[in-house]
Amino acid sequence: NRELKIFSGNANPALAHEICTYLGQRLGEATVSSFSDGEIRVKVDENVRGADVFVVQSTCQPVNDSLLELLIIIDALKRSSANRITAVIPYFGYGRQDRKDQPRVPISAKLVADLISTAGADRVLTMDLHAGQIQGFFNVPVDHLYALPVLLDYITKKKISDLVVVSPDAGGVERARAFAKRLQANLAIIDKRREGPNQAQIMNIIGDVQGKSVLLLDDMIDTAGTIVQGAQACADKGAREVWTACTHAVLSGPALERITKSCLSQVVVTDTIPLRGKEQTCPKLYQLSVAPLLGEAIRRIHEDESVSSLFA
Amino acid sequence: NRELKIFSGNANPALAHEICTYLGQRLGEATVSSFSDGEIRVKVDENVRGADVFVVQSTCQPVNDSLLELLIIIDALKRSSANRITAVIPYFGYGRQDRKDQPRVPISAKLVADLISTAGADRVLTMDLHAGQIQGFFNVPVDHLYALPVLLDYITKKKISDLVVVSPDAGGVERARAFAKRLQANLAIIDKRREGPNQAQIMNIIGDVQGKSVLLLDDMIDTAGTIVQGAQACADKGAREVWTACTHAVLSGPALERITKSCLSQVVVTDTIPLRGKEQTCPKLYQLSVAPLLGEAIRRIHEDESVSSLFA
Ligand SMILES: Nc1ncnc2c1ncn2[C@@H]1O[C@H](COP(=O)(O)O)[C@@H](O)[C@H]1O
Ligand SMILES: Nc1ncnc2c1ncn2[C@@H]1O[C@H](COP(=O)(O)O)[C@@H](O)[C@H]1O
Repeated sequence: NRELKIFSGNANPALAHEICTYLGQRLGEATVSSFSDGEIRVKVDENVRGADVFVVQSTCQPVNDSLLELLIIIDALKRSSANRITAVIPYFGYGRQDRKDQPRVPISAKLVADLISTAGADRVLTMDLHAGQIQGFFNVPVDHLYALPVLLDYITKKKISDLVVVSPDAGGVERARAFAKRLQANLAIIDKRREGPNQAQIMNIIGDVQGKSVLLLDDMIDTAGTIVQGAQACADKGAREVWTACTHAVLSGPALERITKSCLSQVVVTDTIPLRGKEQTCPKLYQLSVAPLLGEAIRRIHEDESVSSLFA
Repeated sequence: NRELKIFSGNANPALAHEICTYLGQRLGEATVSSFSDGEIRVKVDENVRGADVFVVQSTCQPVNDSLLELLIIIDALKRSSANRITAVIPYFGYGRQDRKDQPRVPISAKLVADLISTAGADRVLTMDLHAGQIQGFFNVPVDHLYALPVLLDYITKKKISDLVVVSPDAGGVERARAFAKRLQANLAIIDKRREGPNQAQIMNIIGDVQGKSVLLLDDMIDTAGTIVQGAQACADKGAREVWTACTHAVLSGPALERITKSCLSQVVVTDTIPLRGKEQTCPKLYQLSVAPLLGEAIRRIHEDESVSSLFA
């Protein structure tokens, strides 16, 4: 009986619109802009009393603005008597700062999780967290989806022979393994080692890539350093072609230039982060949409149905 | 016995340094920078176990970055076992979003107060809040200082005859009254009225400014619209000269151009927000330092002495 309403900040309005299209409804009306001094200005322009509200907002670049927008939109909705507020965060920024890997550093991913609860989110829906542990940083229920089915669907349709799924580092082996299994492809791992403090990194490939089509798999592609280095290592070992699939297209700093200059033939990403014209500069980029997946999850959460079958 | 340590983000490092100079100690070592994708990177570079730590950071432009820096620095200090963390926020941004003046808007000032507690601040030290009520938004102790003594000292030394203190709007009358009383000067108020929705604003001056030196007083000067309009209204009523004193130099958008073109002879501000070279573009700006005031407050908070005499 509670009405389903979907709102969006400025991080990925196109994705929010596509989610609405999937659900056959219009986007909730809200003004999300900023004052002259850069303070965020939010006004919810329609009644949300008693509604089941979803706010679609990745905490992607500009990350601090996106995060604050999300928090302030949630505050406005809460004070407008929404019945339940779900923060839909397709890309959860600050995910890499999820542990103290050196003394006296923050655990920003935990801080951000706390900020989202403090603002008033009752639930979180997110995708491909940098580490599964981040779910535990929240004190509210989290539905954690994987972009795997969307990527898998595209990869399968390509009908590539001699496919090898490669993890660019030891941390990504589990993810790569899940893909390799579904694709009935072999698995390989890149083991980066530095022999001494000022020695060049050595890329060791564990597994056979000679003559193969190598699919490098990662949760995100940021400056593209890891992926491009890994791609070169695979090419050096005789790979027939090297391409990559990464859920989150962070693509900061030298990323586009590196990808363009690299031996990578294609970089498949999703729309958890908008490309904002980057695909024009860099035609190797190919974007898939997670809108149907998120839309279906939202529908099920709204209907109190299980979303676990979406994890397939 | 707990050691006093002072850290700073990137919002106003110069002020933090001056506070340290006042206290005769060096600034705590910390790296506060950002990763390629704009995520804030913090590392506390010295031991803070058991220390009484103060973090100096105005939430000024870029406001969302400054706020997140403050929160992440606090998180890092908390996880480094600081004994007590005081957020020193000379300018508290989002202060104007402190009430629902229309339906379905956030109360961002309250949200920000909650975020600061969530991050782990044990106390707050701030100056000239946009509204005194914002103190009540915090669940931790707040020391709320006024820049009044600093401004008053400067104004008194000018030995101006026929001084009239003018509040640019009804909301600032109390602040203007406090100044006028201390300066033994008269008080006047500007009453802005719009007769109809598309009618020009009428500036009514309540009180006598003819032949006087008019000091417009406000807590902040943002786009300078209010102050410049008020100045012109006073000039039109025959004021001898018009100048202004505002604690927080937000100075966004058209502010500098408006001030330059205006009849204002001087704009006195403090360093709660850094000018970052604006005084070169606009020589009417004159900056006073609140560092001794904040330094003294920090010393007293650290020594568990009362700070109330600083409110004089
Ligand atoms: N936004 C970021 N950009 C680049 N590196 C980061 C970022 N946030 C955290 N890190 C670093 O990435 C490392 C963690 O990444 P990972 O080992 O892939 O989980 C840590 O050493 C972090 O200091
Ligand atoms: N950063 C900002 N810049 C300009 N106006 C703002 C800002 N934040 C809030 N406001 C508006 O300022 C008004 C409150 O200011 P005041 O009446 O001076 O307390 C409200 O109508 C707010 O919508």
